[in-house]
Amino acid sequence: MVEFNSRIKTIEWVDTYSKMVDQTIIPYEFKYVNITTGEDMYDAIKTMIVRGAPAIGIAGAQGVILFAQELEKKYTDKAEFIKKLLEKADYLVTSRPTAVNLKWAIEKQKEIIKSSKGSIKELISELKTNAVKLENEDIEINKKIGDNGAKIVPNGATILTHCNAGALATVGYGTALGVVRSAFAKDNTVQVFADETRPRQQGARLTTFELTMDGIPTTLITDGMCSYFMKKGMIDLVVVGADRIAANGDAANKIGTYTVAISAKYHNVPFYVAAPASTIDTSIKSGDEIVIEERSHEEVTHINGKRICAEGVNIINPGFDVTPAELITGIITEKGIFKPEEIKDNF
Amino acid sequence: MVEFNSRIKTIEWVDTYSKMVDQTIIPYEFKYVNITTGEDMYDAIKTMIVRGAPAIGIAGAQGVILFAQELEKKYTDKAEFIKKLLEKADYLVTSRPTAVNLKWAIEKQKEIIKSSKGSIKELISELKTNAVKLENEDIEINKKIGDNGAKIVPNGATILTHCNAGALATVGYGTALGVVRSAFAKDNTVQVFADETRPRQQGARLTTFELTMDGIPTTLITDGMCSYFMKKGMIDLVVVGADRIAANGDAANKIGTYTVAISAKYHNVPFYVAAPASTIDTSIKSGDEIVIEERSHEEVTHINGKRICAEGVNIINPGFDVTPAELITGIITEKGIFKPEEIKDNF
Repeated sequence: MVEFNSRIKTIEWVDTYSKMVDQTIIPYEFKYVNITTGEDMYDAIKTMIVRGAPAIGIAGAQGVILFAQELEKKYTDKAEFIKKLLEKADYLVTSRPTAVNLKWAIEKQKEIIKSSKGSIKELISELKTNAVKLENEDIEINKKIGDNGAKIVPNGATILTHCNAGALATVGYGTALGVVRSAFAKDNTVQVFADETRPRQQGARLTTFELTMDGIPTTLITDGMCSYFMKKGMIDLVVVGADRIAANGDAANKIGTYTVAISAKYHNVPFYVAAPASTIDTSIKSGDEIVIEERSHEEVTHINGKRICAEGVNIINPGFDVTPAELITGIITEKGIFKPEEIKDNF
Repeated sequence: MVEFNSRIKTIEWVDTYSKMVDQTIIPYEFKYVNITTGEDMYDAIKTMIVRGAPAIGIAGAQGVILFAQELEKKYTDKAEFIKKLLEKADYLVTSRPTAVNLKWAIEKQKEIIKSSKGSIKELISELKTNAVKLENEDIEINKKIGDNGAKIVPNGATILTHCNAGALATVGYGTALGVVRSAFAKDNTVQVFADETRPRQQGARLTTFELTMDGIPTTLITDGMCSYFMKKGMIDLVVVGADRIAANGDAANKIGTYTVAISAKYHNVPFYVAAPASTIDTSIKSGDEIVIEERSHEEVTHINGKRICAEGVNIINPGFDVTPAELITGIITEKGIFKPEEIKDNF
């Protein structure tokens, strides 16, 4: 198996292009792809070559630079350049609707575009500087999330997680898996149960990959099994990531998270969400306002290119669900751990 | 796609052998295999060529005949023949530990063996007659279950089911899917949401196959999605099968069922178990006494022969879980619908 550890950057800006881990081929291959055009970045986000709310935020910020580099060749008039670039930035936001980090990071670039005083060249330079700043901050933020979260992980705990909110979902280190890494660094008897996370199997493909590479003991389970292990007392807490957190503390995350949260409540297992402040969207009151992305039917009907069901079935494939605040024990951020009801006054 | 409808028998005794649908290759191929030895029947049950609690009951009864036919060639002394045959019968019970129907049907054959008055040839003839009787009764029982269950299905209802408790889990018609078939016969606006049911995907492979063949509208969802659709009010009731029901109404069924039941309770969606009386085991007080089969790790780590996760992960693969009586609205049997607490006084 390929070499991977949490020090590797999942996404990185290099001079004039984005270098990212191709997450569609893990665990079979581990390789980087270079994304050199804005349209390719749109596709990389949409097809999930890069995925995970914080990582696609960085990808969005980088995509704006790629579009700027292309527009620079076509437009010499700065006002026209800016108009076109803002259009491209808004277009990039539509590549995936649920995770707010994408919009958040692109908004950061738009602020720079709108307040720009210098030449087009200087503006592009500022966009690059900002993207690299966001990239570096992401790792620092994740380490803070990890360290804050590690405080609530009991010694010898087994942590259940869903999907992949790890190094591969961020620039590095991870949010939910950042909590795991920080906890494991303090106490190497901590272990993880990873939900497979159908349809796209990010838990099986990505979480088992990055945790076993770091030597953290990991048990893969299918999505329906969580309640069985909770009832047996084998799960001490649940920690998952988030794609958007509303003002009332409702949290959107990968489809299936809500089911785990209901089961955790039934078994009195603490359920935590780990996410950076950029995931919190206080512009919406509750999770009811979060747009849930509908994804391709093939994600459900096919695995590794092979059909797994009869012809003629109907498919609905929501990419995310919303866990209501009442099921969330705490939200672990770089600023500390908050109860869902404390979100609106602190972000 | 191959021809299939609910009139086809999943398992059938033919003169000197068992003819059964090979369920390991559906939906890719639909074909019958002939099982001609007792050892092959043991393997067919263990490897799930035949599966589903009622179907493996019939398979067990037939397996006893196959062993009897072999022993007849070796032993002329009836007492010795009976001793060896009872050993083989007990061995056959161990092919799968959770479903009580297997034990139940083999016990029926053992009663005949023990009370036999005639020759070895006559005894074998009696075993065949009994196996065919159980086979025919199974379909009759399922139709009664279906008709009883149809009464609690509202017009235009969407029924969520987990795994496959259909024609393919029985001789024909099905238990949970028998309820679906009877409800659909009365009201063709009834539809089904089928959980994929990882690890072995019986929902995706078998349930979508047999329901679409019967023209019953079926939506395939992944196991984590049930709560999303319940919250949206898109699921009117859950109906699942069972592998063993304890005296207190606790019901063992395919792994993941318990998670669905917890979610149904949270959303106030009625949760029904459909099963024949032969699934009810009043010799055990509660589900705590049900032995849960541990199955191969490859069922979790591989799909269609391809690995889906990193090397070095741990696997625990319980084949079943127990849904406690408190989560069960009613148990649909051939004798009527019972509350879990009514089981012990009625069976």
